[in-house]
Amino acid sequence: MHSHHLDTWELPAWALEVVEEWDDAEADDEARMQLAIDLASCNIAEGTGGPFGAAVFDRVSGRLVSIGVNAVVPSNCSHAHAEMMALARAQRDLGTYDLGTAGMEHELVTSCEPCAMCLGAVPWSGVRRVVCGATDDDARAIGFDEGDRAPDWQESLQSRGIEVVTSVCRAAARDVFQQYVDADGSIYNSRES
Amino acid sequence: MHSHHLDTWELPAWALEVVEEWDDAEADDEARMQLAIDLASCNIAEGTGGPFGAAVFDRVSGRLVSIGVNAVVPSNCSHAHAEMMALARAQRDLGTYDLGTAGMEHELVTSCEPCAMCLGAVPWSGVRRVVCGATDDDARAIGFDEGDRAPDWQESLQSRGIEVVTSVCRAAARDVFQQYVDADGSIYNSRES
Repeated sequence: MHSHHLDTWELPAWALEVVEEWDDAEADDEARMQLAIDLASCNIAEGTGGPFGAAVFDRVSGRLVSIGVNAVVPSNCSHAHAEMMALARAQRDLGTYDLGTAGMEHELVTSCEPCAMCLGAVPWSGVRRVVCGATDDDARAIGFDEGDRAPDWQESLQSRGIEVVTSVCRAAARDVFQQYVDADGSIYNSRES
Repeated sequence: MHSHHLDTWELPAWALEVVEEWDDAEADDEARMQLAIDLASCNIAEGTGGPFGAAVFDRVSGRLVSIGVNAVVPSNCSHAHAEMMALARAQRDLGTYDLGTAGMEHELVTSCEPCAMCLGAVPWSGVRRVVCGATDDDARAIGFDEGDRAPDWQESLQSRGIEVVTSVCRAAARDVFQQYVDADGSIYNSRES
């Protein structure tokens, strides 16, 4: 499925090309989501991981701060979900573990609603807004497991001052899951092995 | 608080000395927990992070596979909890994202019950057993936030075939929290900033 090992949070080589084509100007939720979806789609086409993409944006300037793709298999790390990578890379590049410190305001855009791990990581990361594409039901429909989350996870985040927006470009995000199934992609679920 | 930057999953230098003194022979849950607690205690004394330690053991041989300490501040990464580091390092060293594959059987020993993120990471990691020291209430008592977890998280893990044992050496684990408070340690809670 993949040709070489990646370090944790290391992007596959093709991802830099996707970023080069990105234009911050006048991007809205849909445009930002399309970037996350493009990352997920390319990740399938390039054979570098699962069908998930994410990005962190500066909410003040609109600037793209970081991107992430699912890299569980090539990085040999079950933490390497797209959201985790995007958050970790943003924190590393900005030199802080808190993306909400010192007047900064960031948002996470993810091609699919976060699993239990990524959801738990969101408040610690300091982001103030989460934008989701495909729903957890969409992920489950192709065999991925979102884990055991609090049923009221959207309200939980909102009660922490984190805005949640769901089903942005959902149909396009879901199409990527079908692309993965058609490509005979691996559904890695450790606990079932 | 810390003297230099750490890469994600990088151990502080002193941690290697703790491992060198470790003896697998005849170790039981209490001895393994004491290692996790020692890591948490040293992490405070050395000023390299929060009061949390963890380790992964091979359940078949009893071998210590990896260790982790909280390194959120020195690594500029909010994912760098002790459990996440121990799991990631075990996966990296063994060359697999699934610690339960190919006949392997591993357990995670952590000085405190996992937060929402680490709890979500457990099933994906492939470990088959989780041993906890201090309780979530103990962590909350000194101001740490465990996040929004499913209230029946122990049952959820067990329903996935992951054994959970809690309150092993709880008093000693809790003492480390008090050590942290006495040392005027930082309680980093991004969402409150």
